[in-house]
Amino acid sequence: MTITLAQLNAAAPQEAAAMLDGLYEHSPWIAQAALAQRPFASLTQLKHAMARIVAEAGADRQLALIRAHPELAGKAMVSRTLTSESTNEQGKAGLTDCTPEEFARIQQLNADYNAKFGFPFILAVRGPRGTGLTRREIIDTFARRLDNPVDFERAEALRNIHRIVELRVNDKFGVEPDLGNIVWDWQEKLAQFSDPEFKEKGQLTVTYLTDAHRAAAAFIASEMKACGFDEVKIDAVGNVVGVHKAAAAGAKALLTGSHYDTVRNGGKYDGRLGIFTPMACVRELARQQRRLPFDFEVIGFSEEEGQRYKATFLGSGALIGAFNPAWLEQKDADGVTMREAMRHAGLPATLEAIAALRRDPARYLGFVEVHIEQGPVLNEIDLPLGIVTSINGGVRYLCEVIGMASHAGTTPMNRRRDAASAVAELALYIEQRAARDGDSVGTIGIWTVPGGSTNVVPGRCQFTLDLRAPTDAQRDALVKDVLDELQAICTRRGVRHTLEETMRAAAAPSAPKWQQRWERAVESLGVPLHRMPSGAGHDAMKLHEVMPQAMLFVRGQNSGISHNPLESTTSDDIELAVHAFQRLLDDLARENP
Amino acid sequence: MTITLAQLNAAAPQEAAAMLDGLYEHSPWIAQAALAQRPFASLTQLKHAMARIVAEAGADRQLALIRAHPELAGKAMVSRTLTSESTNEQGKAGLTDCTPEEFARIQQLNADYNAKFGFPFILAVRGPRGTGLTRREIIDTFARRLDNPVDFERAEALRNIHRIVELRVNDKFGVEPDLGNIVWDWQEKLAQFSDPEFKEKGQLTVTYLTDAHRAAAAFIASEMKACGFDEVKIDAVGNVVGVHKAAAAGAKALLTGSHYDTVRNGGKYDGRLGIFTPMACVRELARQQRRLPFDFEVIGFSEEEGQRYKATFLGSGALIGAFNPAWLEQKDADGVTMREAMRHAGLPATLEAIAALRRDPARYLGFVEVHIEQGPVLNEIDLPLGIVTSINGGVRYLCEVIGMASHAGTTPMNRRRDAASAVAELALYIEQRAARDGDSVGTIGIWTVPGGSTNVVPGRCQFTLDLRAPTDAQRDALVKDVLDELQAICTRRGVRHTLEETMRAAAAPSAPKWQQRWERAVESLGVPLHRMPSGAGHDAMKLHEVMPQAMLFVRGQNSGISHNPLESTTSDDIELAVHAFQRLLDDLARENP
Repeated sequence: MTITLAQLNAAAPQEAAAMLDGLYEHSPWIAQAALAQRPFASLTQLKHAMARIVAEAGADRQLALIRAHPELAGKAMVSRTLTSESTNEQGKAGLTDCTPEEFARIQQLNADYNAKFGFPFILAVRGPRGTGLTRREIIDTFARRLDNPVDFERAEALRNIHRIVELRVNDKFGVEPDLGNIVWDWQEKLAQFSDPEFKEKGQLTVTYLTDAHRAAAAFIASEMKACGFDEVKIDAVGNVVGVHKAAAAGAKALLTGSHYDTVRNGGKYDGRLGIFTPMACVRELARQQRRLPFDFEVIGFSEEEGQRYKATFLGSGALIGAFNPAWLEQKDADGVTMREAMRHAGLPATLEAIAALRRDPARYLGFVEVHIEQGPVLNEIDLPLGIVTSINGGVRYLCEVIGMASHAGTTPMNRRRDAASAVAELALYIEQRAARDGDSVGTIGIWTVPGGSTNVVPGRCQFTLDLRAPTDAQRDALVKDVLDELQAICTRRGVRHTLEETMRAAAAPSAPKWQQRWERAVESLGVPLHRMPSGAGHDAMKLHEVMPQAMLFVRGQNSGISHNPLESTTSDDIELAVHAFQRLLDDLARENP
Repeated sequence: MTITLAQLNAAAPQEAAAMLDGLYEHSPWIAQAALAQRPFASLTQLKHAMARIVAEAGADRQLALIRAHPELAGKAMVSRTLTSESTNEQGKAGLTDCTPEEFARIQQLNADYNAKFGFPFILAVRGPRGTGLTRREIIDTFARRLDNPVDFERAEALRNIHRIVELRVNDKFGVEPDLGNIVWDWQEKLAQFSDPEFKEKGQLTVTYLTDAHRAAAAFIASEMKACGFDEVKIDAVGNVVGVHKAAAAGAKALLTGSHYDTVRNGGKYDGRLGIFTPMACVRELARQQRRLPFDFEVIGFSEEEGQRYKATFLGSGALIGAFNPAWLEQKDADGVTMREAMRHAGLPATLEAIAALRRDPARYLGFVEVHIEQGPVLNEIDLPLGIVTSINGGVRYLCEVIGMASHAGTTPMNRRRDAASAVAELALYIEQRAARDGDSVGTIGIWTVPGGSTNVVPGRCQFTLDLRAPTDAQRDALVKDVLDELQAICTRRGVRHTLEETMRAAAAPSAPKWQQRWERAVESLGVPLHRMPSGAGHDAMKLHEVMPQAMLFVRGQNSGISHNPLESTTSDDIELAVHAFQRLLDDLARENP
């Protein structure tokens, strides 16, 4: 017996509370408190309202909520005293079918986890349509999370509880994220293609123009055709280009897309979500035999990560004429030139063919891109979608401070020229200086004392600087302050430094009109707005050079970890991204009738 | 025509100034200002007085002094416009005989050096009796010093000027450091023995019981006999033991000595100076056919550095019964056990023979040790000798901070768990906390982000802690504060840490009476007193466990660099160390008639 949101909005308080019974384990107060915020425009709004009530309930009530949950495959499962919801979930995850070894391992993990954190391990184990984590994956996640700091793990437990509740809400309201599930299945199928030496380790790696890369392109092209795109082709740099034609010839086009290549041992969603989300929109348009008043061009870019060749953004760059001719002669780790790789892939491998990919910006309305966040923000604030305000500009440096190595026992503190201490001072300055901007970031990622020894004051310290901000001006001010401080620290400490710039990328602020379109789309779904810069680089940076662009972020699970097999999202969040994209298309159709 | 100190002290001002003419290049004001401090008790006092006047003259006059010097093998040498002193010195260093290639190289170095520092390169090139640096060594030193920070190099130039002046003073007063020269020659001869794979690279390495080590022992024993020691032997652990007998039988003994093994690619003076300095004293006693009222036992300890076997302080430890029986079975890098190495060296290799080396403390007055400072302090304050107040106690830890690796672009500053930043905070705390004590030291010598990457926030940071102080109580307070702060930083930043203690050594404060004997000896030479802790460990730490001890430090050149081929001292400083040891013996003889 399912209920509807209209029924919930209309029901008397006690009746409404009964409707939401069983969502938060043994904790009806959460749903009850949320009900005071009726009417809800969407289930997303209801879910978010409940999550915020938990977030604001204080540490004691949060802990009580976590402790209200059973252990995974624990005593309650064995003695059959789980709530019916938990029985269903643990059963579907196959935990009732554990081998004795798996069961023993989980019991040990339960004991260790409880001893460290003082609450049970909670993991949302269900995926869409009964899929989800395998017992092996559950055990691995369990072991990994044992290493987390306590406060972090408490937040992680709450996030998993919210996901469990989301699945229970869907059951209660008889809702399935159908479009999200379609995209989910595409993601899973595409992830089957992986470069052989990684595939055999169960890892996902698709680098430019390998056999796995070509198979991935063929899969995307074939699914595009099945969706009902009018034109589908693989272009001269391996981009998969699908066009859903406008109702009338000669219309301008909306461009969208993202990349299908991956880093080594990467995640399933980075890039790919930005291809499949608009594909799901086209699938719906075709199903409804509907045509937009503009061409809708969806591209799976072949290269963004710069893994096999140092040719980052090759795919999207080709559309703006940014292909560097020298790349053709560049060799991969096995000595294969890009030209050879292109020929092997059946591409023309000529500069003429590549130059012809350049788009005429006058033909385009603009570029939009959907991407998984690759950061912790949306995950932490319990929001499925985020509006990108700008793709941060960045600069990277390779640096060294040179002081004087000396005896750690015999050199008084006031006579040292400790190279590492100088870098330590800079690191703390960067933390404060970047935080002052609010949305700048600064990182020393590599940090080493070459030939260091316990009893020697560091004479040299090598490190990297990575500085980013949403605008070039903000980034340049950050860079200036950091480099000035480095100089001041070195002068004060009587050491010196070297500095080599290794990367510089301009910021790509979103076009206000396009950002507003995403905002309207997200708001119309009953999802609270959250604006944020993108710290990572994206294909949209390239298109930014020739046309207006704006991006939509989708929440990543596991604190937004990315470039890692743990990168994850949910079919519910994907469903919302598809809906948002549909709203944006509708909005644009109204504007360009 | 030489002058005497008495003449200088008695002369009228202008006459005295004329006597000191030509000491500081084109800068008579320094000697003139020093003359106001007459009478001088010693030439050392005169030299120190002049050095202090330069130290207090301010940066402008110091720079003018440095710039008053000619370039090495520069235009002035070619055009024969050097001062007569410089002509003499540069000629003796063989610089007038440069090959065209060497000359060209020096001209390039002169140009680079002047461009960087704005003053000429100054190097005291003369050693005792016309020996000194070879042209190759001069060029290498020149190239090395080009890398120094400007303020450091300015101080280094002044120190070299003072050394040049010292040699000029000696010439003027017709003084040769005869005893210092004898020790100097012993040092040079002993440095000829080096383990073969290092010797062929021109490096000094003498590790426990190698052929070079045994040859070094034989050399010391043979020189001891030549000096007039009554008994000389090599004991069961390879110590070279010489005894100069008291006037009467049954007297107690004064024990002294240091080690003759070295670290890999080490310096000539570390340890060895503490064997040769008392040997020079015995040589003088024998020459004067004089006997002390106590036995004088001088030991060259066979093992202090723990290089071939992990058996640090083996030589001095054997005298207090601290030989660990398990060491005999320990294997070196080639699989040779210590027992086998001992047998190969003709030693008995039995625990009985080793146990028999234990000394009866009741038979001894105490232990004294002369050692090169291995630090920058005496070099910086222009003093040849220093009084050790304590050998610092120390603790070492191997540590790791575990935070969470995350994307450097997408993780906002306030959501990071940066492991390296936590260590940075600790490093700056240690600097302040150790400095607050004045004589504590704390060092993070190893510092690394394993698998670090430019665009990843460090998830782990491995580092070492080395904390030392002159007393155990002071060290323990330091350790407590540092570890408390580490915990506080980790708690505040939501990261955690691991800690493994890898070393703990008790402090060895000097016995006040023995420290006072060194002080009286040094003061009687007209050398200003400077008391200081020893940051490095020494054989005296072992003897400290059973008898009173005190140490004397001798200034190291090159900012006190040690465990390095650049470790260096001068025959003038050695001469003063021998004189100080003679005064201490005389003092002790008066006390124990």
